[in-house]
Amino acid sequence: MSAIPHDFIRKTAQLSEEVTRPFPSSRKIYVTGSRPDIRVPMREVILTPTQTHQGPEENPPIPIYDTSGPYTDPEAKIDLRAGLPDIRSGWIAERADTEQLEGPTSAFGRARQNDPRLAHLRFEHLRTPRRAKSGRNVTQMHYARLGIITPEMEYVAIRENLRLDELRADPRYAKLLRQHPGQSFGAALPETITPEFVRDEIARGRAIIPANINHPELEPMIIGRNFRVKINTNIGNSALSSSIAEEVEKMVWSVRWGGDTLMDLSTGKHIHETREWILRNAPVPIGTVPIYQALEKVDGRPEELSWELVRDTLIEQAEQGVDYFTLHAGVLLRYLPLTADRLTGIVSRGGSILAKWCLAHHQENFLYTHFEEICEILKAYDVAISLGDGLRPGSLADANDAAQFAELKTLGELTQVAWRHDVQVMIEGPGHVPLQMIRENMTKELADCFEAPFYTLGPIVTDIAPAYDHITSGMGAANIGWYGTAMLCYVTPKEHLGLPNKEDVRAGIITYKIAAHAADLAKGLPGAQIRDNALSKARFEFRWEDQFNLALDPERARDYHDATLPHQSHKVA
Amino acid sequence: MSAIPHDFIRKTAQLSEEVTRPFPSSRKIYVTGSRPDIRVPMREVILTPTQTHQGPEENPPIPIYDTSGPYTDPEAKIDLRAGLPDIRSGWIAERADTEQLEGPTSAFGRARQNDPRLAHLRFEHLRTPRRAKSGRNVTQMHYARLGIITPEMEYVAIRENLRLDELRADPRYAKLLRQHPGQSFGAALPETITPEFVRDEIARGRAIIPANINHPELEPMIIGRNFRVKINTNIGNSALSSSIAEEVEKMVWSVRWGGDTLMDLSTGKHIHETREWILRNAPVPIGTVPIYQALEKVDGRPEELSWELVRDTLIEQAEQGVDYFTLHAGVLLRYLPLTADRLTGIVSRGGSILAKWCLAHHQENFLYTHFEEICEILKAYDVAISLGDGLRPGSLADANDAAQFAELKTLGELTQVAWRHDVQVMIEGPGHVPLQMIRENMTKELADCFEAPFYTLGPIVTDIAPAYDHITSGMGAANIGWYGTAMLCYVTPKEHLGLPNKEDVRAGIITYKIAAHAADLAKGLPGAQIRDNALSKARFEFRWEDQFNLALDPERARDYHDATLPHQSHKVA
Repeated sequence: MSAIPHDFIRKTAQLSEEVTRPFPSSRKIYVTGSRPDIRVPMREVILTPTQTHQGPEENPPIPIYDTSGPYTDPEAKIDLRAGLPDIRSGWIAERADTEQLEGPTSAFGRARQNDPRLAHLRFEHLRTPRRAKSGRNVTQMHYARLGIITPEMEYVAIRENLRLDELRADPRYAKLLRQHPGQSFGAALPETITPEFVRDEIARGRAIIPANINHPELEPMIIGRNFRVKINTNIGNSALSSSIAEEVEKMVWSVRWGGDTLMDLSTGKHIHETREWILRNAPVPIGTVPIYQALEKVDGRPEELSWELVRDTLIEQAEQGVDYFTLHAGVLLRYLPLTADRLTGIVSRGGSILAKWCLAHHQENFLYTHFEEICEILKAYDVAISLGDGLRPGSLADANDAAQFAELKTLGELTQVAWRHDVQVMIEGPGHVPLQMIRENMTKELADCFEAPFYTLGPIVTDIAPAYDHITSGMGAANIGWYGTAMLCYVTPKEHLGLPNKEDVRAGIITYKIAAHAADLAKGLPGAQIRDNALSKARFEFRWEDQFNLALDPERARDYHDATLPHQSHKVA
Repeated sequence: MSAIPHDFIRKTAQLSEEVTRPFPSSRKIYVTGSRPDIRVPMREVILTPTQTHQGPEENPPIPIYDTSGPYTDPEAKIDLRAGLPDIRSGWIAERADTEQLEGPTSAFGRARQNDPRLAHLRFEHLRTPRRAKSGRNVTQMHYARLGIITPEMEYVAIRENLRLDELRADPRYAKLLRQHPGQSFGAALPETITPEFVRDEIARGRAIIPANINHPELEPMIIGRNFRVKINTNIGNSALSSSIAEEVEKMVWSVRWGGDTLMDLSTGKHIHETREWILRNAPVPIGTVPIYQALEKVDGRPEELSWELVRDTLIEQAEQGVDYFTLHAGVLLRYLPLTADRLTGIVSRGGSILAKWCLAHHQENFLYTHFEEICEILKAYDVAISLGDGLRPGSLADANDAAQFAELKTLGELTQVAWRHDVQVMIEGPGHVPLQMIRENMTKELADCFEAPFYTLGPIVTDIAPAYDHITSGMGAANIGWYGTAMLCYVTPKEHLGLPNKEDVRAGIITYKIAAHAADLAKGLPGAQIRDNALSKARFEFRWEDQFNLALDPERARDYHDATLPHQSHKVA
């Protein structure tokens, strides 16, 4: 008999129909790679024929990059209590460089596992964690530098291509493949993504595949300037407002609309258990800010943090399967005075926690002083590091200032340290930046951080529109994505105001999917314009259903159309 | 006794509280110019003090550009039946170059005025139209070229400055005046806008003040690259869905949120009467596409259009007070074959009407062949011309093609014809353009149309997001505004799908206010950053009410905040 009370099971085992219903007129397809266990999911939108005087003319199906995991596959049996199917364990095991541990090695992880009071919250099918064998390095970067193409690399190559080579060979797609030349600002986008290209980009540090060996459920994806621009979404319970069940539902909602990775920023008493449920059911990489949980462990008093506590937290989370950690290791004591004259000081939560610790102890940031040890932990699980921008501007006034760029230089120094350990790195960026100053952020990041992937929050291009900051930041995001940012962290309409609900999350994701796609088009990503062309053709031919079905949000497009009577003059673009 | 039935009066005389309530913690101020009848409205947001250890520290009021007219002035008595106060008649009369006509001179205008069946719809206080005396030219451009600074020019100079010189002299604003240098792409933004600068820009054709002598109610505003970027909104009844009362309410709603000009795209039986109600109550310039009404007069059959019919329509609308006409005079017969290979043909409604006429008659577009006569009409009332882009692309695929740029060249040729008549001109632009191709539109427009103000629809930067096209187009709008577009035509979430409701209009306007402001900041418009700085300071100091009150949409910001409990971690940017 399960130790989980009936009510809780019911809530977590059953996602709402809203988050799982398949997309209209779509089928889930799987493209098989060089071995049968490489099966890459895509969505194909099936279109109706065009009626011409010569009879019907076929409109071929359009393949779409699909982040939604098995949840939108009508064939898949979803059981949140069992978690998603494990698709990578075979790949990990056959590398023979890891070992199954007897249990968690972090003190906190062990305590949680053995606490009978948590039984009713705990994910039932806990797997014991896996770790690199002593002296081994299990990062994708390590393999890449050894010249090894892993199944993960082949998987992302197939995924990025979206069957483009087949489409090119098929005359039905000839007109749809028309595309304007891009302006790539130095990005090197190949006509076809090969597994070898993926390997090479990872080896150089220009791309990462966040894929912890303890998160074998994930469908590998790549973050890098020469691939599709990705988006991250955030979820986070608050002690006040949400349950574990709601967090899992939010995660599924997020991947449904196109979230490529997800950061779990939960606070409160049951972070550890919530994270386990999310990870076991997440088809996308999960990131965290470990210092948030460490702070919970010292009751919210930054000055009581210590390297030992954070170290235990990193191991705890790495053994659960977190795929990347945001660590604000570049917030140095000597940079803090540079923020004194700012309009809005230090606004990054992680940055301000570490600044308080540094000032309380008059010591250098322990994430910086212990950075090599951090890398030792990360490479034993293949956790990627997202170097946090703790001194990012909190207002336009503070954009691109000395504090921000001093930290960026340090992030570059740390990138080189991480790369010596073959640890995968990305760099976080701002924040609040007016349009004309965005480009400088990208240029400096590429130079100072040696082309490590840039991962930016917005940026917001004006401060005067709270309640619309998904839009203010979407404008900045489209531009910085065009200039070369690899992943855009979404912003919702509730930014600066409160906690997003499901509709806010949807609005934030769609806005960022737009920004990312606009950036792909602008860079000239091969094949990026197919969906635009197919939708425009449907629109011009009044094939309304096809227009809806090709949209980023088919449900809303259909609803809006149906809300008013269709009227000829409004059917013209 | 009024001929207007009681129900109709009640509906039109009383706007809803929603569209007229004053903005929170704001006061309407009027800045007086060189003569007492130049009184320029602004809104000032009153802020609370910052609590410091040394006691309260004042936060001075922030002036905001105000398009809302008397509707948000608690002192104003609004009576839609009487129309807005007439603020320009004195200025027009004292120029002594116009005459009051005995009645409308267009055949259609006379017929409508004398049709007893329309009495119940008609605006009661019809003014007889005014027209230039024979041989006189009453355009602002004409006066500017004669070296005359009109009250309208002084008015917009004061309005654009937003009291910046006073703020510069006031030490309380010193920190708030900090601003990043812009990147202006050749715009020449002066530190202070003088009436002489306004005159000079109008004389050169780089800016226009749309202000028909028959629309004396309007509060003058300027459209030009060296001034604040403006936004246009559209309203339009449909025979199916709205009444005259609703159209007036929509206009007031539009100016409330920041619409700088408004195009009335109404169709249906009572276009003439609807327009009269809108004009008499509109504090902003009103634009139309006269060919739409002309088409109604021939029951929707483009081939039955004629120059004579359109000529009568231009005079009809000019005598009502329309401030600018969109005329697709650049759609030439020889350009039509250039659209044959397009994915989405001709999507502009005006463009396709004229293309049909040209093809049906195998003749050149009559708006082109009669362009000098059109200018003769326009200069007798000071109607500005907005040269329509009838061949604009309807999809990314068709962006920046030969058809579009051929038409643009012709618009430049027509600009020079109009300027020979001292007729004010702006140029319409696309449409659907990927990010990397937007700049070319601006560069070509400046070159081919001799720096006449550019007025663009979006552009939409991807075609895959119906239901979110305010956002896809807002991204393009922010960029093209930065590059030099003078006015951005808004797009609502219902674009391509259906008729916008009030919430859609609000979402479209706020998105475009964001784009316009982001562009002002990026260009380095002096003083543009004050509001951002004041709001950021309020945010950093947790002055929530001040943050809301400084927002573009204070009501929504407050609602979103109140929807979830304020939580410390979410108060950090």
